[in-house]
Amino acid sequence: MRELIGAELRHARLTQGRSLRDLAKSANVSVGHLSELERGKKEPSSELVAAVLRELGLSLSALLGSVAVAAARTEGARPHLTLAELPAEVTEIAA
Amino acid sequence: MRELIGAELRHARLTQGRSLRDLAKSANVSVGHLSELERGKKEPSSELVAAVLRELGLSLSALLGSVAVAAARTEGARPHLTLAELPAEVTEIAA
Repeated sequence: MRELIGAELRHARLTQGRSLRDLAKSANVSVGHLSELERGKKEPSSELVAAVLRELGLSLSALLGSVAVAAARTEGARPHLTLAELPAEVTEIAA
Repeated sequence: MRELIGAELRHARLTQGRSLRDLAKSANVSVGHLSELERGKKEPSSELVAAVLRELGLSLSALLGSVAVAAARTEGARPHLTLAELPAEVTEIAA
């Protein structure tokens, strides 16, 4: 789990063209700690993930949605969560 | 994040009608530790989450998909991940 979360956070940072140093400074965390988080070397605390997401302007739901998709890929299968199982507010998007 | 993960794991356990004691034993973790995990009192390690999911017969993608939906609810908005942004293997399910 931590590897997938780290990879998604790294991807989001790179997509925004931000350096590790810049993001670490904004999120008030050391460069080493952020780097370990991105590489899945350290279990991320919920607070650290929240701080990084805040700086990236991303929501927890967006991160976890992406991580769920990445996890499904590593499981070599389509996500176990099918549209039929999703609540109405999500399937509405498809309409 | 840990509160949402814990709540989803608890929900999954209760849906299967399993006791805290039974699941803790199967997952080789103490009852106290599993209880803390479910209540979001302790940051869950990726290994513990994996062990509990294995015992519940759930995938990480299924858990994180549910947690993403729960997170979107607490954010008071629809998930930021729209179907248009999902990769082909996920949107296929809608077909």
